[in-house]
Amino acid sequence: MTDILAANNAVADTLRRRWRQAGIFTCNLMGSPGSGKTALLERTIAALAPSVRLAVVEGDLFTRKDADRIANQGVPVVQINTRGGCHLDAPMVEQALQELNPAELELLVIENVGNLVCPAEFALGEDARVVVLSVTEGADKPLKYPLMFKEAAVVLLNKVDLLAYTDFDMAAVREDIASLNPHAAVLPVSCRTGAGLTAWYEWLRTKIRQKKSPV
Amino acid sequence: MTDILAANNAVADTLRRRWRQAGIFTCNLMGSPGSGKTALLERTIAALAPSVRLAVVEGDLFTRKDADRIANQGVPVVQINTRGGCHLDAPMVEQALQELNPAELELLVIENVGNLVCPAEFALGEDARVVVLSVTEGADKPLKYPLMFKEAAVVLLNKVDLLAYTDFDMAAVREDIASLNPHAAVLPVSCRTGAGLTAWYEWLRTKIRQKKSPV
Repeated sequence: MTDILAANNAVADTLRRRWRQAGIFTCNLMGSPGSGKTALLERTIAALAPSVRLAVVEGDLFTRKDADRIANQGVPVVQINTRGGCHLDAPMVEQALQELNPAELELLVIENVGNLVCPAEFALGEDARVVVLSVTEGADKPLKYPLMFKEAAVVLLNKVDLLAYTDFDMAAVREDIASLNPHAAVLPVSCRTGAGLTAWYEWLRTKIRQKKSPV
Repeated sequence: MTDILAANNAVADTLRRRWRQAGIFTCNLMGSPGSGKTALLERTIAALAPSVRLAVVEGDLFTRKDADRIANQGVPVVQINTRGGCHLDAPMVEQALQELNPAELELLVIENVGNLVCPAEFALGEDARVVVLSVTEGADKPLKYPLMFKEAAVVLLNKVDLLAYTDFDMAAVREDIASLNPHAAVLPVSCRTGAGLTAWYEWLRTKIRQKKSPV
């Protein structure tokens, strides 16, 4: 396992250099199955694509369902099928890049396999890890799946339109995330209604700007 | 990976023989984080424990949160912490069994790590795999995570109390599950309201009876 991670990290480092040269901001988007990662991407593309040159890499075990949803919005998308594999790794992303032109992009979002465990172990050269946790999953998840939350730059608490029908404790989950990772931005959102998403778009725009013109 | 699975299967076979000798029915309970596996167990214990001698093995990466919820109901429970590992394997279950007395039991439920991918690859000697999919996760999940559904004896479609607030297509998901696995029983339930759970309890009671007195 140590060897596998070391080999992955070596490729992730070369990817990171490529993003830096090209001035692209890259996100590794992670979360449980059905947390709302693809719905977040659909909203984000609708909000940003007119002014931001972006592309998406879609990770799934099988099917092109998510890539088709993204392609419907007219942005470049590459589907990676892991054929049962539980996470993306850096070599898969390197291969997918052959179908994209990084020099033309400002933002690349890599949607990982729906899984709150394994993807956290595999760096993809990303600038930021973004975790989507839906309130219907329950407030106990950060402490139960700590690695995913420890390394997240942003945690989106999705499906707040359903909050009233759950026993999700927003204050407790914020406290638990802060105990694991005091620097994470925690943003309650609804990808169904659009609530809260402006803060996410602003976060992304700021990061894209900083990446293009590093201090 | 082939070697790892072969070694796991060898231990799973010895577990299967032990369950058969003891006449215990065993379930491997799987599903995404927050699908409602522990809530299902709480309901099931409340309904069955007065008349059925049961115990629980709880799999989690870290924490005793789930085991504490089960212990509160007064049934024997053993917590396995995988320390970050994404699934239970047969040797972990074999070790946990040292804290239980199979000869005293009729039902053992093994709650796997919350993960719709990796646990499907590791046999635990179980009689039946039971998958919990919550309607808030979306109807596209069976085709996106097929292995989990191909080998399930029962698929519980949980959180139907939230159905009206989602776009979950019950007919489509039934069709997709049937295309992967025509023999799976598909039971819509709510572990919050109790709706639909009688069919699940009846399924379990029948299986327990059959295991004790095989034809």
